[in-house]
Amino acid sequence: MAESPSPIKFGIIGCADIARKVSRAIILSGNSTLYAVGSRTTEKAARFAKENGFPEWAKVYGSYEAVLEDPEVDAVYVPLPTSLHIKWAVVAAQKKKHLLLEKPVALNVGEFDVILEACESNGVQIMDATMWMHHPRAAKMKEFLLDSSHLFGQLKSVHSCFTFAATKDFLENDIRVKPDLDALGVLGDAGWYCVRSILWAADFTLPKSVLALRGTIFNSAGVIIACSASLQWEDGKTATFHCSFLANLTMDLTAVGTNGTLHLHDFVIPFEEKKASFATSVKSGFTELVTGWDPKPSEHTVMTDLPQEALMVREFSRLVGSIKFGGAKPEKKWPALSRKTQLVLDAVKTSIERGYETVEITG
Amino acid sequence: MAESPSPIKFGIIGCADIARKVSRAIILSGNSTLYAVGSRTTEKAARFAKENGFPEWAKVYGSYEAVLEDPEVDAVYVPLPTSLHIKWAVVAAQKKKHLLLEKPVALNVGEFDVILEACESNGVQIMDATMWMHHPRAAKMKEFLLDSSHLFGQLKSVHSCFTFAATKDFLENDIRVKPDLDALGVLGDAGWYCVRSILWAADFTLPKSVLALRGTIFNSAGVIIACSASLQWEDGKTATFHCSFLANLTMDLTAVGTNGTLHLHDFVIPFEEKKASFATSVKSGFTELVTGWDPKPSEHTVMTDLPQEALMVREFSRLVGSIKFGGAKPEKKWPALSRKTQLVLDAVKTSIERGYETVEITG
Repeated sequence: MAESPSPIKFGIIGCADIARKVSRAIILSGNSTLYAVGSRTTEKAARFAKENGFPEWAKVYGSYEAVLEDPEVDAVYVPLPTSLHIKWAVVAAQKKKHLLLEKPVALNVGEFDVILEACESNGVQIMDATMWMHHPRAAKMKEFLLDSSHLFGQLKSVHSCFTFAATKDFLENDIRVKPDLDALGVLGDAGWYCVRSILWAADFTLPKSVLALRGTIFNSAGVIIACSASLQWEDGKTATFHCSFLANLTMDLTAVGTNGTLHLHDFVIPFEEKKASFATSVKSGFTELVTGWDPKPSEHTVMTDLPQEALMVREFSRLVGSIKFGGAKPEKKWPALSRKTQLVLDAVKTSIERGYETVEITG
Repeated sequence: MAESPSPIKFGIIGCADIARKVSRAIILSGNSTLYAVGSRTTEKAARFAKENGFPEWAKVYGSYEAVLEDPEVDAVYVPLPTSLHIKWAVVAAQKKKHLLLEKPVALNVGEFDVILEACESNGVQIMDATMWMHHPRAAKMKEFLLDSSHLFGQLKSVHSCFTFAATKDFLENDIRVKPDLDALGVLGDAGWYCVRSILWAADFTLPKSVLALRGTIFNSAGVIIACSASLQWEDGKTATFHCSFLANLTMDLTAVGTNGTLHLHDFVIPFEEKKASFATSVKSGFTELVTGWDPKPSEHTVMTDLPQEALMVREFSRLVGSIKFGGAKPEKKWPALSRKTQLVLDAVKTSIERGYETVEITG
């Protein structure tokens, strides 16, 4: 990977918890630097900068606008509530800032298309902050899934489950349970990862239809805090997922092909930072008399020097560097993945709103 | 466990492949013996007896009737095609033979109720041959699931997947793909295990409704060879399952509670015969900055001297011995579990037949 002549200068707008992890990732990335942070007050921004390893010379601003007005800022990381994405992502793009945008990227595809239009017409890169995609484990698993002739075969079904037991405080006060801030609730949060993992396993072919499954749980403000859905593809593949704020932390991804099976239980956040595993089985069968398996599944471990979020920042900054210093065009792969993910989320939400009707997906 | 004064004498009617495994299980059980086998020809029965460790003095019959007429036979194991269960199970019960019946127990609950009536009025024990329930691992896992205050909490969701890649020969010739023999296809075979595992995790509370998911695959004779369904309970619990003859061998069970998660990938047939594992996590959370899990899941291994099918036979024969030698009544728990499993299978089939309508379950 060609290094940029100088590190990409990041501005962060908003001091959400997740911004702490991403600040560390920027420091670790090797090709970007923490340059500015903006919050609703200068004090809050200054405290965030101090607590999260910003250099002494970093700019501390009392507004998001100020970050976007700073001509030195190359890229902004946007961890704001989802309902604010459209406004700030568009302004950022207009100010020619490249965008690392938290998920869900918008409240719906219509909003995201406005953001995409702003990015395209201003020539800026956009990437969503789905960290696990950047772990080298994802590439290794993809090799397995793509080996259609020997290892995995053709994908037949996927199941993804991401739940966590939110605290009482989270369930009352977190932005993800507030209809005016993150109206997609758990579907936009944990559900985003489930949908992304399913699409990833399906090589980003969109399903032809989506059905939310009965049993959605809403909070008193009408925000989804647990739900499930099923997806169907033209070729007969199927998938299901379950996401919830109300059950013990679980992060399962299972993909079953004609010849092989992939399993992992920590797909969003690996159990450990420097190594991650997954299990595969290929052409599994039984011993004589069906008293055991032969062959048995095998476990694969992938080491990484950098955590997945630092690799994400590194890849984003590499693309930004290519544009800034090399005259390259923005990479369209990343916004395309974001848009497909959002499209499926929208369909799940529509299915719930229509009383669990099947919703056709039109790309 | 009190031993019977003498071993329970088994007759086997039909020489299906699975009968080989159960013959070995009867030998291993310690409280029962291979006494007779009946097939459509004496030659076939004799060959089966010879190849499967029957004692020299064992009775070899050229019909199923002959086995049921033999007054020395205490119990029969019935591995016949599902469509024949109602006929032979009823005759067996009338002849006062206790019944170890292969799954699915019948083509539908109506038929099974006829079998149950025959068993009740003749005072015979009936148990279905769902082997995994008898592995000591199942009891250990149940302890975990039932610890509602500390470990697992309240069950919120279950996912079960049982698929295997059937050979071309199986897909053309196996009884499980023939509409006149096993009209339930994969739903009655692999799907039986999925439904049983879900009900087991839900402590055999029946769901209030069942919905088959679009994407059912039928063979040219109209038999289901891949399908999925979702289940909903009154209290908000949900479950999904997927079963297929068209995908790599996979046997997943995941149960997620408010505090804990249970995972295993070999729930029907353990990877190894003498030991079996499962993974649990309890009150899982993250490290500071969400860069890993704390605590991590833990693995539990359960050893067993006898394979699960021998433990099944042992439990069945213990119950038969209590009736035969101790004047006990048949244990009603086992047929009740069979009936609930069949009830849910029926609902899935009805949902498919009605074009994926939600089907209410009425116990």
